[in-house]
Amino acid sequence: MDPTPPQVACFEAGIKFGSLYHQFAGTPVSPDSAGSLARAMEEAIENQPYCESVTVSVRTEALQAAIEDADAEYTELTGRFLEVEMVIEYDGVTVETSMSMDGDYPLMEVDDLRD
Amino acid sequence: MDPTPPQVACFEAGIKFGSLYHQFAGTPVSPDSAGSLARAMEEAIENQPYCESVTVSVRTEALQAAIEDADAEYTELTGRFLEVEMVIEYDGVTVETSMSMDGDYPLMEVDDLRD
Amino acid sequence: MDPTPPQVACFEAGIKFGSLYHQFAGTPVSPDSAGSLARAMEEAIENQPYCESVTVSVRTEALQAAIEDADAEYTELTGRFLEVEMVIEYDGVTVETSMSMDGDYPLMEVDDLRD
Amino acid sequence: MDPTPPQVACFEAGIKFGSLYHQFAGTPVSPDSAGSLARAMEEAIENQPYCESVTVSVRTEALQAAIEDADAEYTELTGRFLEVEMVIEYDGVTVETSMSMDGDYPLMEVDDLRD
Repeated sequence: MDPTPPQVACFEAGIKFGSLYHQFAGTPVSPDSAGSLARAMEEAIENQPYCESVTVSVRTEALQAAIEDADAEYTELTGRFLEVEMVIEYDGVTVETSMSMDGDYPLMEVDDLRD
Repeated sequence: MDPTPPQVACFEAGIKFGSLYHQFAGTPVSPDSAGSLARAMEEAIENQPYCESVTVSVRTEALQAAIEDADAEYTELTGRFLEVEMVIEYDGVTVETSMSMDGDYPLMEVDDLRD
Repeated sequence: MDPTPPQVACFEAGIKFGSLYHQFAGTPVSPDSAGSLARAMEEAIENQPYCESVTVSVRTEALQAAIEDADAEYTELTGRFLEVEMVIEYDGVTVETSMSMDGDYPLMEVDDLRD
Repeated sequence: MDPTPPQVACFEAGIKFGSLYHQFAGTPVSPDSAGSLARAMEEAIENQPYCESVTVSVRTEALQAAIEDADAEYTELTGRFLEVEMVIEYDGVTVETSMSMDGDYPLMEVDDLRD
């Protein structure tokens, strides 16, 4: 059957998460450049339809530790350096979603849905 | 409130679409290389959780026309050269989704949901 | 035979250009979000070895025109919306490179080399 | 001063390496899907100007080990799972380049240049 508005709202939320992750994964990142990357990720994805707000925080300690472990000066962006919150609004439905670490895996979840 | 299984299934479907699109957008592509790219896109995204099948077709005529218009030998992958179908299964729910052109915009949609 | 320092400097310059282009091509972009994306591109690539400076300018008129042509609110980043200058220093060699439009094609070039 | 043909050939070689790496870094990959991804990488980059041949090998043991360490079924593509060889020809100059692991870092190098 056809999807309901809450289901489409969740589909749209998922699109934004997949976009954010796979557009920016692999970007060279260091503690000094993490802030500008986080801002660009937020503003880029907020362009997409139904996307009310995106908040990206870099997990600076995890990032610094990874760089030191590799005896390097920067590393590549991957999910374990990120915490993301996103609000999607579609046809009267509000979806709150987030990505945070579940053990070693960056888990994307629908935290709350209101219609 | 917490999402229902059909809503989570739609969220998961969206993640796969955003991933597929933004991982591969910008890839150099020509009619000769379109087939290997389509296969790689399918198999890459089928790795993701709950993703039963991905089918990617390149719109070869649109691709050829864009390359000729630019007097070039290849171009960069973007949504208007693609048709995608995907089946997601999550907790007993099956979601069928697709991406195809709606005018000039590559529209991602939930076509059918069964639980 | 083995490459000379000026040749390696040019190789390193090319790596940065390919990285910048293919990491960020496809990013959703609008006039409002172009500035944060340009800053993130600069700071991300400046992390890479031997990269002294990166300057990214968005061609706002071309961007605005593309968005209006498509009757849209944003588009995807591609080379025709960018002008980029980069300075690479490797083993006493300075390479100045740029990307700008040559007709419809974003041409990456070595503008000057000093050792 | 202006670059010589061997220097431009090295610049072009670098572009291809940066493109290959940053276009495909972050792609979901498993031992089963590694082959189609490697073929797509080769054929995509061979579209670019002056690129005679690209050979991508996936380091299957390192990939399998990373997946098992994370108790996962797939991981994201990064340089430590790849070996790449590339031949560039520009204005009578042939450049052979490769990427392979130097400790923990995927090192891109000019191996040989002939004019």
